[in-house]
Amino acid sequence: MSGAKTIPTKPIKFNSIDEWHYDTDVVVVGYGGAGSCAAIEAADAGKRVTLFELAAGPGGSTALSSAEIYMGGDGGTRVQAAIGYEDSNQAMIDYLTNCAGPQADVAKIEAYVKGSVDHFNWLVEQGVPFKDSEYKERAIMALTDDCLLYTGSEKAWPFNKTAKPCPRGHNLEVEGDNGGPLFMKVMTENIAKREIDVHLSSRVLSLIQDDDGEVKGVRVRIDMQERNVRAHNGVVLCAGGFVMNEAMVKKFAPGLQKCSIPIGNVGDMGTGILMGMGAGGAAINMHEGFVSVPYYPPASLTYGVFINAQGQRFINEDCYHGRVGSYVLQQTGDRVYLVLSVEDYADYETASYLGAQVAGTGETIEELEEELELPKGQLVQTLGTYNNFAAQGEDPLFHKSAEWLKELKAPYVALDVTPGRGAFLPYFTLGGLDTLPSGEVVSAEGNVIVGLYAAGRTACGVPRRGAGYNSGISVGDATFSGRMAGKAAAARA
Amino acid sequence: MSGAKTIPTKPIKFNSIDEWHYDTDVVVVGYGGAGSCAAIEAADAGKRVTLFELAAGPGGSTALSSAEIYMGGDGGTRVQAAIGYEDSNQAMIDYLTNCAGPQADVAKIEAYVKGSVDHFNWLVEQGVPFKDSEYKERAIMALTDDCLLYTGSEKAWPFNKTAKPCPRGHNLEVEGDNGGPLFMKVMTENIAKREIDVHLSSRVLSLIQDDDGEVKGVRVRIDMQERNVRAHNGVVLCAGGFVMNEAMVKKFAPGLQKCSIPIGNVGDMGTGILMGMGAGGAAINMHEGFVSVPYYPPASLTYGVFINAQGQRFINEDCYHGRVGSYVLQQTGDRVYLVLSVEDYADYETASYLGAQVAGTGETIEELEEELELPKGQLVQTLGTYNNFAAQGEDPLFHKSAEWLKELKAPYVALDVTPGRGAFLPYFTLGGLDTLPSGEVVSAEGNVIVGLYAAGRTACGVPRRGAGYNSGISVGDATFSGRMAGKAAAARA
Repeated sequence: MSGAKTIPTKPIKFNSIDEWHYDTDVVVVGYGGAGSCAAIEAADAGKRVTLFELAAGPGGSTALSSAEIYMGGDGGTRVQAAIGYEDSNQAMIDYLTNCAGPQADVAKIEAYVKGSVDHFNWLVEQGVPFKDSEYKERAIMALTDDCLLYTGSEKAWPFNKTAKPCPRGHNLEVEGDNGGPLFMKVMTENIAKREIDVHLSSRVLSLIQDDDGEVKGVRVRIDMQERNVRAHNGVVLCAGGFVMNEAMVKKFAPGLQKCSIPIGNVGDMGTGILMGMGAGGAAINMHEGFVSVPYYPPASLTYGVFINAQGQRFINEDCYHGRVGSYVLQQTGDRVYLVLSVEDYADYETASYLGAQVAGTGETIEELEEELELPKGQLVQTLGTYNNFAAQGEDPLFHKSAEWLKELKAPYVALDVTPGRGAFLPYFTLGGLDTLPSGEVVSAEGNVIVGLYAAGRTACGVPRRGAGYNSGISVGDATFSGRMAGKAAAARA
Repeated sequence: MSGAKTIPTKPIKFNSIDEWHYDTDVVVVGYGGAGSCAAIEAADAGKRVTLFELAAGPGGSTALSSAEIYMGGDGGTRVQAAIGYEDSNQAMIDYLTNCAGPQADVAKIEAYVKGSVDHFNWLVEQGVPFKDSEYKERAIMALTDDCLLYTGSEKAWPFNKTAKPCPRGHNLEVEGDNGGPLFMKVMTENIAKREIDVHLSSRVLSLIQDDDGEVKGVRVRIDMQERNVRAHNGVVLCAGGFVMNEAMVKKFAPGLQKCSIPIGNVGDMGTGILMGMGAGGAAINMHEGFVSVPYYPPASLTYGVFINAQGQRFINEDCYHGRVGSYVLQQTGDRVYLVLSVEDYADYETASYLGAQVAGTGETIEELEEELELPKGQLVQTLGTYNNFAAQGEDPLFHKSAEWLKELKAPYVALDVTPGRGAFLPYFTLGGLDTLPSGEVVSAEGNVIVGLYAAGRTACGVPRRGAGYNSGISVGDATFSGRMAGKAAAARA
């Protein structure tokens, strides 16, 4: 925890400050997706904005991502409408509420959905390019410049029972996995166009708070010197999550340690969350994370079945890879395989991110069962049942959709997706500071910490569960919540 | 959140206090199991102790419990030794570490285990009666005055693979479910013997903290007047958990809301945790809770099998009822049944706490399957497999021990243990302030909040997961951690 140890989360007292080196209205901490949007909105509201970034350049974790953006709702985005999808606020609210499960923040989801089409238009105004086209493959991301794709479990049980499915992942108009760099390039150009005071290689060390609990500024290290920055309107923490802070993950989200690769930038050390906690903000949902078993593409692997150490299925395999990841972590016995017909496995090695090893093969199910050392008869029963129902086009156990139901045929292959056995199982955190939809940070009793805002993964936002994650919801939530926080800070009287 | 809203978790500033109405060394907040032990130890160390309790009398949640106490380790307690059980620190540490899972606090577990036999002796010295006898039935508690029983999953897979099983639940020598009242009666007598200043019907409103973060005292409402209490050594928060605070449960442990009955006293409003957070302490593991499906006694229900909406088994039914509860909450499809031979069900209505309704019956498995509207063939397969293996005395799927394996026989009955359908599924919280084994409260970075201690369920202690809970570990942890905190506060220079 050496990294975090050096961060004094305890705020500095306002009345202990002798000299203010900078004077501004809104301080934004972190120059990723959330921070850039917060800074732009605060500046456009006529406020003086000062932006501090730890790294030598802008980007944050948004630049490392694919930057799909999850948007939709009444009337649809321009892209949804052009292709002919009819989305609605209610469907999107119901879907995201189901995704978040018991920990849903419905007020935050409603604000996100009701502002979603406007958010799309705002991004377009900034110059973010979206093509009026669709990417129809089942994929984690579009590698073409096409825009609209399903990036969650919208069409999968149980989500399809309560909300009409609609694709809402918006991929930027750029070839390859380059959405994140392009997005941050556009944001950086927008920052440059405005009179925003940007400091790179600058580490915010502490909040400055008065005796009534109001946040008045920050202390920052710039050019090897500690500087006090007065923020008359407020401080917006957009400093990412805590996935890179091993000690924090161990303390707050120990279940994620089973996964293989933390996803984020080196600044995702939880410093924003820690500073917010030190100022009286509550960190919530800290145990949760996104966890992926990226078994598609190739989409053909969706024809397979996941089985656990009991040789039982445990999920509809046509849902989102992150939902599968979350269930994989829950299985009793710590062995999980993806069993496939070899014919569906053909493209695996070239197309997959999964990196799972072959655990067994068989000309018959019995042979595979034996090779995997599963309890005798279990795989035979499980696949027998699956095949019988698949032949009838139904899955009464897990409700996999007919589109992905197909009898498994010999020869068979099983991939080992057990955590810790070599498969690529990336993860990041979903807990953070509790905020109002405005981005105002609140204490455990729900009292606002005056002058303090958080956005992106420093806050606990719309996405709350690995089991209900959607690609595009992090950049969607980060950019939207960044804007809301920037506006709210600027509007503070 | 009206209850919590009235609690100013923000500490009062030390330098704002004009008058001190009480002057003491150690303030203990809460007169339950943890608080009484903390007060006794601090007093026995020669310090002036002032104890505040919200209720009109002592007791807390300990008095409402069975007050089994989980103890053992090298050499065994007097009772373990008298009966002939050979326990060891290593076995107990390994077991409790497995119980706590990824969120285990190994330092805290080691301290608990290494101090456990001494803790037994200390309790005996205070006058807590334990009989040198054993209760051999599989039960949630002994209703006789016998002492030693298995109160966890020690003999069940997977725990029995890594640690030699030993019974460690110590029931007080009293007939009926009267351990809690007796325990608190003994503690109250011990408090009365010492010069401990006890204030009942007294609500601690806030901590008092100086500018360096040191906790210096509390503000308390006594006789309708707010009073400032100076605590020269420190404040020990023993104010219980937060299971009675609906808003906090919704915010921090929303998954528990599926259960039916919160277990605790009306003071379990999280006020101790909130005050600790306000002073800079980190609350951890806040999503976790104990959740029970109390299906035994009668022990004969252990011969049954739990099945989910897929008609699949999901657990070894010989494990602890709280582990079953935790798995019940995880099942996909929100339907869970306990399927039994009617012959094993005979004593159910008179002996069980479960209160589950009969969901279906059948002269054949097919008939029961149809009545439960399970996917066709699933229950037939599941019970067929179970019976085949049971006949061989093994359960290669979930490793239920041979002792509880028996072929299910017609006629059959299924009890509905789906959350929300009438079965009694009690729960309480397992998250709280992060503390060192000494009881010192620490911040998210691990820095000690000087002068602040927490114990019992205000702290996050040895028990960390519903899936690894043991009866007797809460009162064990509360009393042990209370003693440690009382000693540490008294010893502070």
